[in-house]
Amino acid sequence: MIVVMEKHATEEQVSHMVEKVEALGLKAHVIVGAERTVIAAIGDKREETKQSLESGAGVSAVMPILAPFKVASREVKPEPTQVKTGSLTIGDGVLGVIAGPCSVESEEQIIRSAQAVKAAGATALRGGAFKPRTSPYSFQGLKEHGLQLLAAARDATGLAIVTEVMGTDDVDLVARYADVLQIGARNMQNYRLLEAVGGAGKPVLLKRGPCATMEELLLAAEYILNEGNPNVILCERGIRTFETHTRFTLPLATVPYLRQITHLPIVTDPSHGTGHTRLVPDMAAASIAAGADGLILEVHPDPENAMSDGYQSLNFQQFEQTMELCRKVAEALGKKMGAAVPVA
Amino acid sequence: MIVVMEKHATEEQVSHMVEKVEALGLKAHVIVGAERTVIAAIGDKREETKQSLESGAGVSAVMPILAPFKVASREVKPEPTQVKTGSLTIGDGVLGVIAGPCSVESEEQIIRSAQAVKAAGATALRGGAFKPRTSPYSFQGLKEHGLQLLAAARDATGLAIVTEVMGTDDVDLVARYADVLQIGARNMQNYRLLEAVGGAGKPVLLKRGPCATMEELLLAAEYILNEGNPNVILCERGIRTFETHTRFTLPLATVPYLRQITHLPIVTDPSHGTGHTRLVPDMAAASIAAGADGLILEVHPDPENAMSDGYQSLNFQQFEQTMELCRKVAEALGKKMGAAVPVA
Amino acid sequence: MIVVMEKHATEEQVSHMVEKVEALGLKAHVIVGAERTVIAAIGDKREETKQSLESGAGVSAVMPILAPFKVASREVKPEPTQVKTGSLTIGDGVLGVIAGPCSVESEEQIIRSAQAVKAAGATALRGGAFKPRTSPYSFQGLKEHGLQLLAAARDATGLAIVTEVMGTDDVDLVARYADVLQIGARNMQNYRLLEAVGGAGKPVLLKRGPCATMEELLLAAEYILNEGNPNVILCERGIRTFETHTRFTLPLATVPYLRQITHLPIVTDPSHGTGHTRLVPDMAAASIAAGADGLILEVHPDPENAMSDGYQSLNFQQFEQTMELCRKVAEALGKKMGAAVPVA
Amino acid sequence: MIVVMEKHATEEQVSHMVEKVEALGLKAHVIVGAERTVIAAIGDKREETKQSLESGAGVSAVMPILAPFKVASREVKPEPTQVKTGSLTIGDGVLGVIAGPCSVESEEQIIRSAQAVKAAGATALRGGAFKPRTSPYSFQGLKEHGLQLLAAARDATGLAIVTEVMGTDDVDLVARYADVLQIGARNMQNYRLLEAVGGAGKPVLLKRGPCATMEELLLAAEYILNEGNPNVILCERGIRTFETHTRFTLPLATVPYLRQITHLPIVTDPSHGTGHTRLVPDMAAASIAAGADGLILEVHPDPENAMSDGYQSLNFQQFEQTMELCRKVAEALGKKMGAAVPVA
Repeated sequence: MIVVMEKHATEEQVSHMVEKVEALGLKAHVIVGAERTVIAAIGDKREETKQSLESGAGVSAVMPILAPFKVASREVKPEPTQVKTGSLTIGDGVLGVIAGPCSVESEEQIIRSAQAVKAAGATALRGGAFKPRTSPYSFQGLKEHGLQLLAAARDATGLAIVTEVMGTDDVDLVARYADVLQIGARNMQNYRLLEAVGGAGKPVLLKRGPCATMEELLLAAEYILNEGNPNVILCERGIRTFETHTRFTLPLATVPYLRQITHLPIVTDPSHGTGHTRLVPDMAAASIAAGADGLILEVHPDPENAMSDGYQSLNFQQFEQTMELCRKVAEALGKKMGAAVPVA
Repeated sequence: MIVVMEKHATEEQVSHMVEKVEALGLKAHVIVGAERTVIAAIGDKREETKQSLESGAGVSAVMPILAPFKVASREVKPEPTQVKTGSLTIGDGVLGVIAGPCSVESEEQIIRSAQAVKAAGATALRGGAFKPRTSPYSFQGLKEHGLQLLAAARDATGLAIVTEVMGTDDVDLVARYADVLQIGARNMQNYRLLEAVGGAGKPVLLKRGPCATMEELLLAAEYILNEGNPNVILCERGIRTFETHTRFTLPLATVPYLRQITHLPIVTDPSHGTGHTRLVPDMAAASIAAGADGLILEVHPDPENAMSDGYQSLNFQQFEQTMELCRKVAEALGKKMGAAVPVA
Repeated sequence: MIVVMEKHATEEQVSHMVEKVEALGLKAHVIVGAERTVIAAIGDKREETKQSLESGAGVSAVMPILAPFKVASREVKPEPTQVKTGSLTIGDGVLGVIAGPCSVESEEQIIRSAQAVKAAGATALRGGAFKPRTSPYSFQGLKEHGLQLLAAARDATGLAIVTEVMGTDDVDLVARYADVLQIGARNMQNYRLLEAVGGAGKPVLLKRGPCATMEELLLAAEYILNEGNPNVILCERGIRTFETHTRFTLPLATVPYLRQITHLPIVTDPSHGTGHTRLVPDMAAASIAAGADGLILEVHPDPENAMSDGYQSLNFQQFEQTMELCRKVAEALGKKMGAAVPVA
Repeated sequence: MIVVMEKHATEEQVSHMVEKVEALGLKAHVIVGAERTVIAAIGDKREETKQSLESGAGVSAVMPILAPFKVASREVKPEPTQVKTGSLTIGDGVLGVIAGPCSVESEEQIIRSAQAVKAAGATALRGGAFKPRTSPYSFQGLKEHGLQLLAAARDATGLAIVTEVMGTDDVDLVARYADVLQIGARNMQNYRLLEAVGGAGKPVLLKRGPCATMEELLLAAEYILNEGNPNVILCERGIRTFETHTRFTLPLATVPYLRQITHLPIVTDPSHGTGHTRLVPDMAAASIAAGADGLILEVHPDPENAMSDGYQSLNFQQFEQTMELCRKVAEALGKKMGAAVPVA
């Protein structure tokens, strides 16, 4: 921690801060500059220390020099993590594609979707049974019945199932059906839920909150990893900015940035990240070029009549074309699109 | 709903959309303009409709014309809601001030705080027992013991207790001790939790998420109101923007804007909204001038040694001065700062 | 400057950076921490240094510890600057109110406006003759004729004139008529224009760009101050954020923050800052409570028929009520609303 | 234009608005809905109309239905514009790469840079002679001498020159040396400058301002196009958001979005868009995959000792690798990287 004193800080204020740093069990190192005095506090690890020092009299700023996340850090584990479950392999050079409708609506809809996305090369099926909706008056999902239909789709196609869990009370139920538990963007800092899925024994797809920093995302992952669950997939799904021509702004620099500091696999969600079907294929290809370990995409047999998110869903043909585009880019970069396992 | 067709949309596309609008049970009204055709869809109320129409071929944009929230709307209930519980009255011309430390740390700390904030004019005590922390390695609160200390502080001073609840499993426990249940910014769209506090029979202080729109905030309130709980206090606590000289950006126009569209009381949180003790007094006064129904402020006996948020906490003397400043502004505007009830 | 090395930086990399720091004429101070090495570079003043150090191998981050602005800094000039010109006094305890239409439209319109805002207590008249418009197809102002009408309004009322200058070619012309040259938000980083107005011998009202940081605003002021012009008034007019219920987000914490680091006076612009007439009065009052040295407000005889910005303009009666509200707040805080001088 | 009345708007208010719409020369079409009345104003084209209608009593919102830009619109000119000048061809399937140092520093530096970027496949040379710098104390460029050095580099390599012009007074001078005039992000809404470069007879590279909307960017282009200059290249260089791990947020969805609504070519600037050398190669490749017509990249012989922007510049080897990566992606998508013309 670096404590920068104010320009006119008194010697007493400097001494007080030195004592304070030492009282925290750290070694203080005073550097008297031409215009300001700076105190280096060596040995520190905790966020609390920063906060404690910041409120000292005469202090202008306190700058931490250690990243606060640990288990997720590449400095701790340099080799990339690969998450494998059923038909889905993701990370360490293998690209996974999770595709399917926003909401599970009916047996026919979900099974047709599973078959179509599998045929086009998807390696897992997504579909919402518990839907977090901004308005209490919107369709909230088929709940357990939706989970049963997802399981039926897995039986029919062999595709692993990725589905969202919204509350701690539902974790056991969802984990009985799903292969990967999804934490939605709104719940990225629902710490009780993070702890619960950390203990559920299933891989977790953790979506970035629309105004979460990289540090907050990695610390949210840390809540899960700390429960002993090493299988966390990070997902960039767009942030909230002043832009209005897209539903969110999809910042693809997230991908190489995270790649350099964490060993966890990273996927992007161009469907939510743009909010417009027409922008999805190009942003899917761009994600692969940016180095993403995979994609999560909304695909619906009939987007115009979808019960949710139709405006950002691909139909089967559009999904096929998107996969074709992504495959070309992946191959050009020497990467492998994971193929779904055949039904046994 | 207004459906704007693309410039070169064909007659077939227009006819298709008209059928679609009618299939949704709405009345379609076609307006052929100089450059584009527009279809007014009359009678619509649901978010799903917008989504369904947006994905139609030839459609350029769909614009809703009805606000999606209902129970919170001033169009439905024109008169302002006043929330009353114990020493706290807030709304309809009465200003409430909720003050106290970020975290409950010890019996002495919370009781001294309660006495000091009461003496300076606060009408409720805040204090965190369950703390949502960005890092799993930070202090997480004293949990039930913290609640017991808050109850002791209420016994000692008569101040109503406002404290956060983080998970559905804790709602019953927290509701046994608290007078007002606080939903933190990170949980503003934790719908399970909103439903749970909606049914807990206690007023709720709902903090705006740092990238939530007004519509999302009001729809989150709607989740609580829909459970039959009319006592919701909205709280503006700052949004995330590109600014870095403050922890968040505190947008006070929220106050008159919400005042005009909802009957619910609105308070601001200048402590989190700025993140710097030095900016809190002026922003508290500005909040009152903007028309806020009250404030929630972090106050600590010794901010420099606080276990959390010391850098944005007022000490007792600073709180007194802040209250003095706010009282002057309130009186100038003909408003009444609520006084805490004396201990019986 | 503090240079933070990467966790696994080699001794060679550290030595290289030490040499580099010394080659820049700075004193290097190496601090070996538990997990990382940090180098303090003492004596530095220039932005270039930071950039130069940042690209060194093994460097994780470089953190400046000195504010880059000088002449605008309160550390350099602790006493507040008061700007005085004709009827307008602003700063150091005196509140100035600049009011008038967005655009000068006709002699009758500007003279009626000047009389009305003066009667209600404004101390200067605003009005645009050169209008920067997002679209080339929008009304661009009456240009020199507009300036002549402003001068006529000054003759009629004694009010000082504040008007925008858009290009270097127009500086002399505008300076012949205006008392204060306004730099619009879009031109905050038009450095040629800043230099030109710095040399024009008239006070300058510098509007914050909608995504400018505090540092960028103060460095823009520095461009003007460096030309020998000490009379700069800073103006907060709202930033661009994800919010859509207001045209911009007006962050009032700017006011106390700037007050603490610069001696220059600070006004706010609640008209542009909110974009809605209905929100202007409360945000004007909140600005005064936050400590602003004044206001700039759009006022029009007939907002519904204004050629620009009618939706955010006050009519005469609304302006009177707003002034009344602000006067109450100012008096409560012991401040003086400046009164316009009578016509000689 | 669609005028949405308030829920409780009176018949008088509706009649008043109808008259007003008709007074503006538009046809009014009243639609009485279940809960609200809506007026369609047919025939409208101007921004002023929207503003005028918005301030009417009883009006809740006014929604424009026509895009305000014209000449830049693909609805007006469906076929893509290709800009050609000297060695640079950009647009309509041909990718151009503009590379070189942030600032021109010396003859040796710029000529070595030109040779290196040409060898690696760049089709134009960038380099700043007039530098807009946030601080007046930073290096401001070599000015005309810098332009002469750029011309020497063109003589030596045949590469077209892209360089920034900061003020109207410099347009003639810069146009004498440059092949493409660059408008920097800070000047995107410096309308005098846009008009001046519109008349200078050279292609213009127009950078998006860091908080400009798509509409504002296209209307800025419209200022140039309206002067009779059809050769405008749009450049996405990142927007300002809450993110701090990158200098700006580079929103690549800009590329397919603009592609669909304008015929102008679109390049991206991954150097400024990320602010970190390490993130540039992946974001360059992602830009090509997203459909960009080209790139503008900062390349320096010795980034560590660059006079500006070293932390985001590629060295020659990194640039070669980046080009290699981009070429693979371009070929996979069937696109052609333009090759620089040989020196005659």
